[in-house]
Amino acid sequence: MPKDLNPDLYQRRESEARSYCRSFPTSFVRASGSEMWDAKGNRYIDFLAGCSSLNYGHNDPDMKAALIEHIQADGIAHGLDMHTEQKQAFLQTFEDIILKPRNMDYKVMMTGPTGTNAVESAMKLARKVTGRRNIIAFTNGFHGMTMGALAATGNAGKRAGAGSVSLSDTSHMPYEHAFGQDMDSLRIMEQMLANPSSGIDAPAAFIIEPVQGEGGLNAASGDFMRGVARLAKEHGALLIVDDIQAGCGRTGTFFSFEEMGIEPDLIPMAKSFSGMGLPFAALLIKPEYDIWKPAEHNGTFRGNTHAFVTARVALEKFWKDDSFQKELAEKAVILTTGLQAVADEIQGAKLKGRGLMQGVDVGSGDLAEDICARCFEKGLIIETSGAGDEVVKVLAAITTPVALYREGLEILLEATREAIANTKMAAE
Amino acid sequence: MPKDLNPDLYQRRESEARSYCRSFPTSFVRASGSEMWDAKGNRYIDFLAGCSSLNYGHNDPDMKAALIEHIQADGIAHGLDMHTEQKQAFLQTFEDIILKPRNMDYKVMMTGPTGTNAVESAMKLARKVTGRRNIIAFTNGFHGMTMGALAATGNAGKRAGAGSVSLSDTSHMPYEHAFGQDMDSLRIMEQMLANPSSGIDAPAAFIIEPVQGEGGLNAASGDFMRGVARLAKEHGALLIVDDIQAGCGRTGTFFSFEEMGIEPDLIPMAKSFSGMGLPFAALLIKPEYDIWKPAEHNGTFRGNTHAFVTARVALEKFWKDDSFQKELAEKAVILTTGLQAVADEIQGAKLKGRGLMQGVDVGSGDLAEDICARCFEKGLIIETSGAGDEVVKVLAAITTPVALYREGLEILLEATREAIANTKMAAE
Amino acid sequence: MPKDLNPDLYQRRESEARSYCRSFPTSFVRASGSEMWDAKGNRYIDFLAGCSSLNYGHNDPDMKAALIEHIQADGIAHGLDMHTEQKQAFLQTFEDIILKPRNMDYKVMMTGPTGTNAVESAMKLARKVTGRRNIIAFTNGFHGMTMGALAATGNAGKRAGAGSVSLSDTSHMPYEHAFGQDMDSLRIMEQMLANPSSGIDAPAAFIIEPVQGEGGLNAASGDFMRGVARLAKEHGALLIVDDIQAGCGRTGTFFSFEEMGIEPDLIPMAKSFSGMGLPFAALLIKPEYDIWKPAEHNGTFRGNTHAFVTARVALEKFWKDDSFQKELAEKAVILTTGLQAVADEIQGAKLKGRGLMQGVDVGSGDLAEDICARCFEKGLIIETSGAGDEVVKVLAAITTPVALYREGLEILLEATREAIANTKMAAE
Amino acid sequence: MPKDLNPDLYQRRESEARSYCRSFPTSFVRASGSEMWDAKGNRYIDFLAGCSSLNYGHNDPDMKAALIEHIQADGIAHGLDMHTEQKQAFLQTFEDIILKPRNMDYKVMMTGPTGTNAVESAMKLARKVTGRRNIIAFTNGFHGMTMGALAATGNAGKRAGAGSVSLSDTSHMPYEHAFGQDMDSLRIMEQMLANPSSGIDAPAAFIIEPVQGEGGLNAASGDFMRGVARLAKEHGALLIVDDIQAGCGRTGTFFSFEEMGIEPDLIPMAKSFSGMGLPFAALLIKPEYDIWKPAEHNGTFRGNTHAFVTARVALEKFWKDDSFQKELAEKAVILTTGLQAVADEIQGAKLKGRGLMQGVDVGSGDLAEDICARCFEKGLIIETSGAGDEVVKVLAAITTPVALYREGLEILLEATREAIANTKMAAE
Repeated sequence: MPKDLNPDLYQRRESEARSYCRSFPTSFVRASGSEMWDAKGNRYIDFLAGCSSLNYGHNDPDMKAALIEHIQADGIAHGLDMHTEQKQAFLQTFEDIILKPRNMDYKVMMTGPTGTNAVESAMKLARKVTGRRNIIAFTNGFHGMTMGALAATGNAGKRAGAGSVSLSDTSHMPYEHAFGQDMDSLRIMEQMLANPSSGIDAPAAFIIEPVQGEGGLNAASGDFMRGVARLAKEHGALLIVDDIQAGCGRTGTFFSFEEMGIEPDLIPMAKSFSGMGLPFAALLIKPEYDIWKPAEHNGTFRGNTHAFVTARVALEKFWKDDSFQKELAEKAVILTTGLQAVADEIQGAKLKGRGLMQGVDVGSGDLAEDICARCFEKGLIIETSGAGDEVVKVLAAITTPVALYREGLEILLEATREAIANTKMAAE
Repeated sequence: MPKDLNPDLYQRRESEARSYCRSFPTSFVRASGSEMWDAKGNRYIDFLAGCSSLNYGHNDPDMKAALIEHIQADGIAHGLDMHTEQKQAFLQTFEDIILKPRNMDYKVMMTGPTGTNAVESAMKLARKVTGRRNIIAFTNGFHGMTMGALAATGNAGKRAGAGSVSLSDTSHMPYEHAFGQDMDSLRIMEQMLANPSSGIDAPAAFIIEPVQGEGGLNAASGDFMRGVARLAKEHGALLIVDDIQAGCGRTGTFFSFEEMGIEPDLIPMAKSFSGMGLPFAALLIKPEYDIWKPAEHNGTFRGNTHAFVTARVALEKFWKDDSFQKELAEKAVILTTGLQAVADEIQGAKLKGRGLMQGVDVGSGDLAEDICARCFEKGLIIETSGAGDEVVKVLAAITTPVALYREGLEILLEATREAIANTKMAAE
Repeated sequence: MPKDLNPDLYQRRESEARSYCRSFPTSFVRASGSEMWDAKGNRYIDFLAGCSSLNYGHNDPDMKAALIEHIQADGIAHGLDMHTEQKQAFLQTFEDIILKPRNMDYKVMMTGPTGTNAVESAMKLARKVTGRRNIIAFTNGFHGMTMGALAATGNAGKRAGAGSVSLSDTSHMPYEHAFGQDMDSLRIMEQMLANPSSGIDAPAAFIIEPVQGEGGLNAASGDFMRGVARLAKEHGALLIVDDIQAGCGRTGTFFSFEEMGIEPDLIPMAKSFSGMGLPFAALLIKPEYDIWKPAEHNGTFRGNTHAFVTARVALEKFWKDDSFQKELAEKAVILTTGLQAVADEIQGAKLKGRGLMQGVDVGSGDLAEDICARCFEKGLIIETSGAGDEVVKVLAAITTPVALYREGLEILLEATREAIANTKMAAE
Repeated sequence: MPKDLNPDLYQRRESEARSYCRSFPTSFVRASGSEMWDAKGNRYIDFLAGCSSLNYGHNDPDMKAALIEHIQADGIAHGLDMHTEQKQAFLQTFEDIILKPRNMDYKVMMTGPTGTNAVESAMKLARKVTGRRNIIAFTNGFHGMTMGALAATGNAGKRAGAGSVSLSDTSHMPYEHAFGQDMDSLRIMEQMLANPSSGIDAPAAFIIEPVQGEGGLNAASGDFMRGVARLAKEHGALLIVDDIQAGCGRTGTFFSFEEMGIEPDLIPMAKSFSGMGLPFAALLIKPEYDIWKPAEHNGTFRGNTHAFVTARVALEKFWKDDSFQKELAEKAVILTTGLQAVADEIQGAKLKGRGLMQGVDVGSGDLAEDICARCFEKGLIIETSGAGDEVVKVLAAITTPVALYREGLEILLEATREAIANTKMAAE
C-alpha cells in the first residue's frame, strides 16, 4: 500500500469541503497517546486531539486491548439498537461511575453517533415536551451541521452551507460578555423574555455550551450558567447543555458544568464519549422528559458496539475515583502558565478558556494562522478557533504527560516569537 | 461482566426511543456471517443484517483481520479529515474498483458517518448549486431524522418527532405506482412542474431511493428512474439518488441504479459502505457540483479511519471482478422463490422489492408483526417495513450461504403458516 | 385639474408594480353601470368590472344616493371596529337576506378590507382551531399577496415576489382535471392523505375557489367540491371556500357553491361584497370555530363604514327575492352563446368557467393578449387569465343590460377574427 | 333603520375578534371633527381618532364636499390600478406638496389599502433587492397581522394568532432604551451584526417605527434613528421606516422622521394617508429599489379612488405651507402640559411619545384601563397602548381645536383622580 501523500488523488477524489488536511499537508500513518507519525517518519505532538475527541489520547493501550479482544471474539460490531452484552455493560458502568456518584438521574438516548444527531434529538425532544418551537441559542455557539443544529449555530460561514433555506425557530442571544465586560448579557435576555412584546417567542429550550470550543474558547461563569438555568425554569423552557466538546474531562471534571450547581434537562454528548475517537453520541435525558415513542427518532448506527467497549474502558480506567481529576487540575496550571508566556509576547493578547481547554486570543486570525503553520513545521499540530479564527487553541489529550505538554508549549512559544518577529519585519 | 439481559437497567437508563430491542428481547453477545448468538447460547439466523448495514455479514474474517492489524499497529483511529494512509488507500481503491470500471466520475465527501448526514449534505449542496430551496421527495421515502432529511422523509410517525416545527422546503410527490398501477406518477409530476401556477416551486433537486427500504420495498422501474432523471434535467434540478439502503450490492449490483442508464448528480452512501457495520457515510458528488468551501460542512467523525480499513477490504474482496455479482443474481432467485412460497399462503399477498432486498406485503401490519414475532421464537431475526408495517422484509446479508438462506426462508414459511392458522382460528 | 394622461408623472412617481394601466393606456374620468369614459371622451364597455369587484356595475344610483346621504349627514367614515348604526344595519340585513333564507349560520369577522386579509384570517384561524400547520391549496389557486396567502397561491410570478423567503406550511394539490380529464384529482388527494408515509402533514384546512378566477376560469364540479368537503371532514380539517372572486352573484347565485350541498367552515369574502367597489372584506366563520380572542387579529380599516352602507343597499336591492338570480341565469346563456361564437373562430379553443364568469381558452397567451389589445382599441375593456394568460375572460358587471352584453361580445368576436387573421398572415 | 345598540345581533353575528366595541359599548351614528355622537344622542370627544387614521378629524368639510362631488359626477370608485384623473391628481399633488419641498425622491406603490399590505410589500421588496431573508425588527414594534408583517410584530398575543406556524425570517432587537436608559441598544445591535458568529443572518432590512404607537409610545431619538440608518447602510440592508401611525403630521411634521437627517429606503404609509379615514395605503420606494415586475405584487383595492380624492384635498388643505405645522407645535405643548398634570397624580408615572402622539405610562394596565373606562363614562374616547396596556394614549385628531383638547384633557385628569382614589380605597 503506498503510504506517502498523493495530493492528486485527494484533489481528484475528495470533496472541496475537506479542511484540516489543508492545514496539515502530510499523510499520517500511526498515532499513540499525544503523538502522531506521518509516512515520512516525522513525529508530531498532537495539540488538537481530534478537536477534543481524543481526550484520552490516541490508541490507549487498554482500550485497544479490549477492542481487539472484542473483535477477535466475534463480538457484535453493528447491532442497531438491540440489546447487547456491550451496551448493557456500558450502561451499567455509566450508571455506576458517572451518574450515581454525581447524584445524577438521566436516561441515555443512543442517537446516531455524531454530535449533531444528539443535538437534533435534544432540540426535537424539547419542542415535543413543551409544544413550543423557539430555541434560544448563543452568539458563537456551535452545535452541528444538519439543518436543525445548524439553526442554533452562530457561524456565518457554516450557516451559508444551508444555501437559500431559512434556519428558523431559533433566537440568538449574547453569550456572557459577548458585548464586553460591562454589558450584562443575562439582563438583556431577561428583559427580552420578560417583555411580552419583544418578538421573542416563548422558548422550548436554551442550548448552551459551558465553554464554546469552536466559538473562541469563551468560558461561561457559574453565575451566568445558573442565570440561564433560572431563566429556563422561569419561562417553562428546557435547559440543553451541549457538553460535546467541553465534556469528558476536558475542563477538569467529567461534565464541564459539574461544579456550577445546575441540572441540565438534556445533555448531548459525543466526541470523547467513546474514549478512543470512535463515532459515538448520546443524549442524556431527565427521566420525566423521556417522552419519545419507540423509534420516533432512530438511526442506523445508534448502537456502535465497538464504541460501547472502549467507552466502558475509558470510564473504568479514568473515572472510578478522583485521582485522574486531580491530575487534570495540575495540568491545567501548567497549561495556563505556558499560554501566559505566549500571551506575554503579543500586545493585547489574552487567555481564553478553562481547564484543559485553553488558548490565546492573539488579536488576529492571520497571526493565529501563521503561528499554527509555524508550529506544524516544528512538529506541533495545533489549530485556531473563534469567529475570526483569532484564538490559538490547545486541545491536547488530557492524558498528555507533563513533559510532552511542556515540549508542545515550548514549540508554541517559539513559533509565536517567530511569527511576531515576522509581522514586525513586514511592517517595517 | 454479567451478560444476560437486565431489563431493569434498560428500563431505567435507556431512552424510550429504543425500538429493535423491543422486538428481539434478548441480549446478543456474538455474531458471525449471518448468524447471531445471545447470552443464553441461542443461535439466530439474521435476516435483518443491521437494516442492510451488514451486507457482507457480521465480522467478515478478512475485515476483522485487517482491522485488528490496524489497531495493533497504532493505526489512526480518529483523524478528523486529515490525510491518512488509510483514507488514501480507500479513495484509491474506490476509484479503481468502483468508479473506473463503471465509467463514473465522482468526488467523495466525508460527511459525518451517518446516512442522515450524507443526505443533509446533499440537500444543502443542491440548494447552494441551484440557488433554489424546494426539494422534491417521494411518498414513502425515508432519508433520515435530522431536520433537513426529516423534511424529505414521508413517515408521519417520524415527522411527528419534530414537534411543532415545520418541515419545510420540500414537496412530496407520488412514487411510481403509489396510487395504483393505472395512475402515472411521472405524468402527475411532469404536469405539476410544467404548470407555472401549480404552487410547486422550481426544484433544487429530486431525492429518490431506487428501492424504498423503509417505505415498503417499493422498487422503481428503470423507466420511472429515467423519467425522474429527465425531469430533473429539464427543470434545472439535481438528481440525488439515495443509495444508502439499496446500495453496496443489496439489489445485485454495487449501486442499485447501475443498469438504469441514469447518472445521479449526488449519491448519499452509508450503511454497508464500511463493509463491517462501522459508522461511515459519504456523499458522491459530480465534480462540477463540488462547490463546497473548505469546512463549509464538517463533522467530527467524518474520517472514521477504522471504517476506511474495512471498507477497502470489502471492495477488494467482493467487487474486484464480477464473480460476486453473479452469485448475487443466483441468490436473488432463491429469495424470490422462497418468498413466493410465503406469499402463496396468504390471500392477496404480493412480492415486493428487487434483488436481495425483497419481501412480502401480507396486507396487514398485525399479521406481519405476528409472523416476525413467531420467526424470532424459531430463531430467525426479521423485520417489517412499509407505511403500515405490512411488509415482511428480508435483508439477509448478501453473503449468506445458500443453505442458510433456505433455512431462514423455511422458518419464515412455517411462521407464516402458523400466523395464518392463528388468524383463522381467531376469526372463527 | 389636468385630466388627460401624463405618462411622465406615472413613470416618475408610480411603482413599476403597476399593471392594468399598462394594458389600458388612457386616463379614466367617469364610469356608470358597465361603461367607462376617459379624459378624451372615449367610451368603453367594461368587461373587467374591477376583476369582479363591480358586479353591480359602476356607481349604482341607489348605492350612490345612500352613500352621499351618509356622508352629508356626517355618518361615520372610519370607526375601527366600534359599533355603528351602519355596521349594525349591515349585519342585520346580511342575516335577514343572505343567511336565513339559505339556512346558513355564520359569524362575520371584519378582517381588514382586502381579500388577502380575509384569507390570512381564515388560514390563521384554521391553524388555531386544529393545532396543525399544513393547508392544502390547489394548482392555479389565487388567494393573495401577503406571505400567508401567497403560500397558498400557485402563480410562480407572484410567488417570486417573496424573494428568498420560503412560502411554507402549504401543500399544493391538483384542482379538478388539472392533469386532464382522465386523471382523478380527488383520488390522488385521497391517497396522499390516506397514506401515513406520504409526507403530506395532516391538514389544518383545504382552501379552494369553486371557480378559479385568476387561474384560468377553472370551474369545479359539485362532485369535486363535495369530495373535497368530505376529505376535509374525514381528516379533521376545515374547509375554506374562497368566494372572493366567484361570490356575490358572479356565478348566478349569491355564493358560488350554493347548489353544491356543501357547508364551508370558513368563507373569505371581498371584491363585490361592498357592492360599489369600496374596500371591504370579511370572513364568514361557523360559530363553533370562532375562537378568536378579542383583537387577536385586527386591522385599522376593518370597519369601512362607507362600505357597510353600500353593501347593505346591494343586498336589499338585488337579493331580497329571486328575481335578480333569474335574470342572471338568462344572461349566462347569452354569455355562453357569445363566447361559443368566439371559440368557434379558433382551432382548439374551449369555453371555461361558469355563470357570468366565463371565458375562452384560446390556446396561447400571445393570442389572448392580442385579442384583448384589439378589444381595447375598439372600446372594450377585457383581460386575460390563466397560468399562461391564455384565457380571454369576461367579468362584465352582472347587472350589464343585455344589449350592452351583446355589443361587447360583438366587439370581442370581431377582435378575435382580426387577431386570427393577423396570426395567419404572420405565419405565411 | 333601528339605530340603537343591538348587543344580541353582534353577539350572534360578529366574530369574537371584535375589540374596540367592547371598550366603547354604544352605537355611534355621527361624527364631525373631534366629536362623535351615539344613537342616544350622547356626545363624545374622540381622543382615539381611528388609532391615528383620522388625523384631520371626522368628516372634514372640504374632503366631504370633494368626495360627494366626485360621487355625484360618477367619478371612478374602483379602478384597480388603472390610470384615473384622481390618481393622477393625487400623485401630482403628492409630488408638489410633499416630496419636492422636502427634497425627497420616491416612487409610490399602491399596495392594497391596509397598512399590513404596505409593510408586506416593503419586506418582500427588501428581500428581492438584497437577495437576503432576515429582517431586523424591534421590541414592541407593530407592523400588521398578515403572516409576513406579523413576523416583524413583537406582541405575543398577536403572534399567537398565527397558531402553530413559525413567524420566521425576522430577528428582534431592542428598541432604544428597551432595556433601560443605561443599556445601549445600538451597541448591542452593532456587535450582533459585526460578529460573524452571532447567528444573526445578514439583514435584508431594518424595519422601525420612529414612534411606536401600539408598543407604548416609545419615541426614538434622532441619534438612535441615525444609528439604525448607519447600521443598515454598513451592512447592505435597506431601511424601512414604518410611518403608518406616526406619519401624516401626527408628530408635528408630515413624516415623523423629517428632522432626523435620515433617508429611508422604503416608507409604508397608511392610516391618515387618505385624510378622511378611507382605506388607503402606499409604499414609498427610493427609485433605485423599484425593481418590481408589473403585477408582481397586486391587490384588488390598490386604487381606492375615493381615497385619492380625499387624500389630495388633505395635502392641499393642510400641507401647502408651514402654517399647519406651526399650529401642531403649539398644540403639542398643550398636550404635554395636560398630560404632565395627569402624570403628576400618579406615583412613578411618566410621559411617553412625541408631538401629538403622547401619553402617560401609569405603571399598570389595570389602572390604565380603569382610567379609560371612566373617561368613556364622562364622554371621552381614549385607549391604552404598550406591552402591558400600561400607557394611556392620546391620539386626538391633530386638527382638534384647542378648547376641545383642553376639555378632553380635563376629563382625563378627572378620571385619573377618581381611578387613583378608587385604587387607594381598594388598598385600604
